[in-house]
Amino acid sequence: MSDLIERRRALLSPSYRLFYDRPVQPVRGEGAWLYEADGTRLLDAYNNVVPVGHCHPRVVAAMAAQSALLNTHTRYLHQGILDYSAALLAKFPAALARATFTCTGSEANDLAIRVARFVTGGTGIIVTGNAYHGVTGLTAEISPSLGETVALGAHVRTVPAPAPGVAFGAEVARACADLSRHGIKPALLIVDTVFASDGVFTDPAGVLAPAAAAIRAAGGLFLADEVQPGFGRLGEAFWGFARHGVVPDLVSMGKPMGNGYPVAGLVARPELMAEFGEKIRYFNTFGGNPVAMAAARATLEVIEAEGLQDNALKMGAALRAELSARTAVRAVRGAGLFLGVALESGALASRVVNRMRALGVLISTSGPAGDVLKIRPPLVLSEDQAALLVAAFDKAVADG
Amino acid sequence: MSDLIERRRALLSPSYRLFYDRPVQPVRGEGAWLYEADGTRLLDAYNNVVPVGHCHPRVVAAMAAQSALLNTHTRYLHQGILDYSAALLAKFPAALARATFTCTGSEANDLAIRVARFVTGGTGIIVTGNAYHGVTGLTAEISPSLGETVALGAHVRTVPAPAPGVAFGAEVARACADLSRHGIKPALLIVDTVFASDGVFTDPAGVLAPAAAAIRAAGGLFLADEVQPGFGRLGEAFWGFARHGVVPDLVSMGKPMGNGYPVAGLVARPELMAEFGEKIRYFNTFGGNPVAMAAARATLEVIEAEGLQDNALKMGAALRAELSARTAVRAVRGAGLFLGVALESGALASRVVNRMRALGVLISTSGPAGDVLKIRPPLVLSEDQAALLVAAFDKAVADG
Repeated sequence: MSDLIERRRALLSPSYRLFYDRPVQPVRGEGAWLYEADGTRLLDAYNNVVPVGHCHPRVVAAMAAQSALLNTHTRYLHQGILDYSAALLAKFPAALARATFTCTGSEANDLAIRVARFVTGGTGIIVTGNAYHGVTGLTAEISPSLGETVALGAHVRTVPAPAPGVAFGAEVARACADLSRHGIKPALLIVDTVFASDGVFTDPAGVLAPAAAAIRAAGGLFLADEVQPGFGRLGEAFWGFARHGVVPDLVSMGKPMGNGYPVAGLVARPELMAEFGEKIRYFNTFGGNPVAMAAARATLEVIEAEGLQDNALKMGAALRAELSARTAVRAVRGAGLFLGVALESGALASRVVNRMRALGVLISTSGPAGDVLKIRPPLVLSEDQAALLVAAFDKAVADG
Repeated sequence: MSDLIERRRALLSPSYRLFYDRPVQPVRGEGAWLYEADGTRLLDAYNNVVPVGHCHPRVVAAMAAQSALLNTHTRYLHQGILDYSAALLAKFPAALARATFTCTGSEANDLAIRVARFVTGGTGIIVTGNAYHGVTGLTAEISPSLGETVALGAHVRTVPAPAPGVAFGAEVARACADLSRHGIKPALLIVDTVFASDGVFTDPAGVLAPAAAAIRAAGGLFLADEVQPGFGRLGEAFWGFARHGVVPDLVSMGKPMGNGYPVAGLVARPELMAEFGEKIRYFNTFGGNPVAMAAARATLEVIEAEGLQDNALKMGAALRAELSARTAVRAVRGAGLFLGVALESGALASRVVNRMRALGVLISTSGPAGDVLKIRPPLVLSEDQAALLVAAFDKAVADG
């Protein structure tokens, strides 16, 4: 392992960071399990990129078959992108009816910013105080969670995430007013619909509606960033915005979309894309290619065929019930299998994460103080695996 | 076909554009051939994304095998990224010794801009007059080829591509002076090393060296954008910059890297990444994942095992000799299997491209006037296929 760490130093940019005091080195994955070379089994309760489980045979087969048959791009006609688009758009309210495909969530959010600025003529963007929306230049400058070495854009304003006691709609209205006072026309409110990097805030349902109304009243658009919460993980709804009874103007998605294949996208109101798209061509070489679409379609079909949204609801409720009863836990937030477990301090959360890793369960932390455990397993999590997670948590807390 | 076009209108953003008056609809690919559903065979002389040929079995097998075994990310240790990085960096001068992986060439160029601005403290960027460097917000604003609806950044300056009679180094020096005169510190000169969208300019070799010297004298960095020319296509050298006897500070790459799998990257001087990377974390969820690395490694191995750089040199020379002898051709530029064939007008070039498509040979156009045929087949092009291309060209020109 120290050899690999040394080789990383010698070959890769130091921008790369490893998880855990003792990094993991998986060589094989199956369902919610990861295996290291010596046979050590790790329960993956972190990776939302594999909603249907690691190396799901149906997704692998779809990808392999299409790769062996044809892989081109969207300047040629291909049935795959149309069939998947139809299946994907069927998961949205009727008003959201046009798809554009990218390779990463960063690219999807970056494109959304371009669309919003073009259509509204504004430049101002509102995000939450510890938001994360991507690593392109445009998305990094609206991602305060990247830390103080990455400057926020001059036209960016932050609002507190909708924690208890925060009047989220009023905060957004105030940020719009502040932008206007600086001569900056508001273009976009963008929120991760579970506020994952802010510490996971999902309740009360409905909290997004006044915020969407506020940005629209100021002439801007509302983007739901579903890159982390989307595709059934929340159990109660397929998308995070749907829990809040609001229809966004734009929805970005990514991570879980192709169960690990680099595919992401932006779904939007047709009127917006008509204005943008007729004047501006957008060609993403790999975006929407036949293999990406085959992987995404198989992933969506497995989520439905295996009832994984229901499983997320059920297993999420079970985990929440168990963890809520622990004295070390201040609060359990989230929905379905996207849980934020608030502990007393960031130091404790960090110890628990590293201790759980030593016990063979992978999770991470969230929130500006890092005091929230982020639990986000593949949606195939079983009852036994959930029990194992809780047992590891108990032991990690007991070990202090 | 009209049904698919109608479905695209109903489901996708109008940003999507189709090639050719009569679009193609391939359903299968093999080597340099694409096949339509009715069995029509098309010679692909356009897609540099598949350097080793469509659906190369070795790349497909590598990708499928790794997909079935494990696909995670760079926050865990994995041998694949290190083995590929070592193989990739061995293709570079010793001074370029750190790799960072993204999913698209746009992301690689976008990251390069972030690095250059962070390290130099400058913001000014110099590109050629019809350059294309990507579709993220940052890269679109340095891509004049996207057209007038996409505004160039206020800190962006353009210089003419190094066509005959252009003193390219002096032009870059002048652009640096103009930036400075506006109080803008130069950060980066970025050039596609074959100037593909400017109309393909590759000679005389050496023309980039004074330009790199000029940007460095002004405190900026030099980025070679190898997203289109890289990975052996030019025959004479593995990278475009190497033909010019210059060592860039940063090199971006993408399209051909994984033979269609979404993988791209940035290779840089270690000193630059030390400064950037130690202060700024960069995590690209899908970037450098084990499957991406397996696809990229197999692609690199096939390029070497099948002698495809040599084949590009040989077949490129053969095509150039034939096409140069045609009276309709004003000039043949380029290197290896990246050819720009200048015709009398954009109207003629457009007719030739569409006529060749009807004859079953796929190419495209380039240059601000669209009067340059862009010929860029998979590197596996055979003598028979080259002859077929030339025959189709002759017939298309004769048909007027």
